[in-house]
Amino acid sequence: MRAAVYYGPNKVEIADVPEPQVGPGQVKVKVGFNGICGTDLHEYYAGPIFIPTEPHALTGQQMPLVLGHEFSGTVTEVGKGVTGTSVGDRVAIEPIYRCGHCAPCVAGNYNICQQIGFHGLMSDGGMAEYTVVPADMVHQLPDNVSLELGALVEPMSVAYHAATLGDVRPGDTAMVFGAGPIGIGLWFALRGKGLDDVLVVEPSPTRRAAVEALGAKTLDPTVVDVPEYVRDATDGRGADAVYDAAGVQPSVETALACVGARKPMVSVAIYEKPLETPLLNLVMNESRIQGSLCYTSADCEAVIALMAEGKYDPTGWVSAIALDSVVEDGFEALHAGTKMKVLVDPSQ
Amino acid sequence: MRAAVYYGPNKVEIADVPEPQVGPGQVKVKVGFNGICGTDLHEYYAGPIFIPTEPHALTGQQMPLVLGHEFSGTVTEVGKGVTGTSVGDRVAIEPIYRCGHCAPCVAGNYNICQQIGFHGLMSDGGMAEYTVVPADMVHQLPDNVSLELGALVEPMSVAYHAATLGDVRPGDTAMVFGAGPIGIGLWFALRGKGLDDVLVVEPSPTRRAAVEALGAKTLDPTVVDVPEYVRDATDGRGADAVYDAAGVQPSVETALACVGARKPMVSVAIYEKPLETPLLNLVMNESRIQGSLCYTSADCEAVIALMAEGKYDPTGWVSAIALDSVVEDGFEALHAGTKMKVLVDPSQ
Repeated sequence: MRAAVYYGPNKVEIADVPEPQVGPGQVKVKVGFNGICGTDLHEYYAGPIFIPTEPHALTGQQMPLVLGHEFSGTVTEVGKGVTGTSVGDRVAIEPIYRCGHCAPCVAGNYNICQQIGFHGLMSDGGMAEYTVVPADMVHQLPDNVSLELGALVEPMSVAYHAATLGDVRPGDTAMVFGAGPIGIGLWFALRGKGLDDVLVVEPSPTRRAAVEALGAKTLDPTVVDVPEYVRDATDGRGADAVYDAAGVQPSVETALACVGARKPMVSVAIYEKPLETPLLNLVMNESRIQGSLCYTSADCEAVIALMAEGKYDPTGWVSAIALDSVVEDGFEALHAGTKMKVLVDPSQ
Repeated sequence: MRAAVYYGPNKVEIADVPEPQVGPGQVKVKVGFNGICGTDLHEYYAGPIFIPTEPHALTGQQMPLVLGHEFSGTVTEVGKGVTGTSVGDRVAIEPIYRCGHCAPCVAGNYNICQQIGFHGLMSDGGMAEYTVVPADMVHQLPDNVSLELGALVEPMSVAYHAATLGDVRPGDTAMVFGAGPIGIGLWFALRGKGLDDVLVVEPSPTRRAAVEALGAKTLDPTVVDVPEYVRDATDGRGADAVYDAAGVQPSVETALACVGARKPMVSVAIYEKPLETPLLNLVMNESRIQGSLCYTSADCEAVIALMAEGKYDPTGWVSAIALDSVVEDGFEALHAGTKMKVLVDPSQ
């Protein structure tokens, strides 16, 4: 079968590899769509970062590997002992491998497992015609959720998990900094949680236009005094939750100037270096910065349920490409900023 | 009467001022002891910062002012309408003025009132033979709590409030960065909350010796790899709560490398500038930074109750001086680091 294989930085090739064989407790999936993640870009341009160069503790695999951890598909075979999943099921994959015995795993927070692995980073993933996953990675998709949306379950669950850590409720004012795929996912998640007042702060006109087309209210921080705007809009209270999905100095600074007393800034960004952070803002109003990483099963199920209610819309920010053109139309287009979210279609 | 009056930077003088008159709802206090706070030092060397140069919204007062917001004393007169406080009562003062109607006040968090004022910064305070306070600032001291300890109720309440925001329980491992008066207060508060395992991280040998003499276990971060030490001591879990009472780059960096999954670093420091903060640490284990400011009535009552149980000990880190020598033996000695905590005795 054809697959996008990672051999190292700037070296991803469409190769002909053997079809994976299903074992006990496993499920074989014909991949529908597989999204390209920011992590994949980092691996392509600056890796290997997460991709192991020696056998991974949980998967035993190492590079070269088939990329792809954001995917949906149709079950074509189930291994011995698998229950609840049948051939023909349309599914989204929750690609986390966890150890099950570290303190976070025992507490149910396997999203921060100390040995965490991802199918498609630490094992052969979804940028291929077929892939084989442990049965517990499978989430059923309702009939009215397309395989395109199904491939978005993973990144939308990252955002949904972060939205939840912001401790918001209907009637609250929330702010999202950065309108990339995770920022857009936050907007959908917060709306899905019943918030009407969600402001998206984004300097790029292209990204603002994309999220505005979905119905979002936006602010351009290069022309608006964002903290002043929010103070005025909330009678001086500040926002009930702010989300940093940009991960840069100006977003953190502005977000911390907007957050209300005893309220959180949720960080759901991969900060490339320590940023100058105005910690005094946290002290003066007893607000907090809360980190957020990945998701657990409950987040994926919540996203799928909202998708079934029609709360997620890929129009204008998601585009599909053929597997063969993953480098040019995928990595390079995303890197250049000409596309926002790309789904790879292995059937093409 | 004699009082330490603030006229501006480097200008605090012992002046002869009129004795304040008690009005309705007020209480007149013969000051026992009044502690010098880091805030007072900032005002002395770099002020006015908090001391108003025009009439304050809540007190109507401005500089020149009598300093002193950490004090205890004996009630000598009560104004019309005051109940629950009598002449002769030994009291500690909770010196916060609040507006009562901003969002934090309405939520009960008047420690972060948007117009907050302090008796002794925004009105004539306790570095004087007498001072007059609103009756609701008064906390009764049990017979077995000395006026020296009573003057420590205010700073110890700052630390107790922060300790509570760390969400700790008996059996937890906590770490305190910085063994100044607030760091020492955190140690007492955490021990008072039933924690046996409290590590104090402090580079200064003098400060380490002082807190060790009280019974604390300390680490010298200039010779010990503190994060490694804590990982080993907690089977890799990290600390259940870390407290930054130092407010400098190395303390924040090290503290965030020590905090466990989903656990807090509580910031109880006045950060003079934004610090380079490794926010990625927060993301990777979903930990958080929680700001902490001042205290409310419940914190003061909790501290007084622990003092009555003998849980606070001023030995080795607190010294009393005469009002007349507040500049040399107070501000200058604290600034030079030759003393840790100074109580001014206005009777001398």
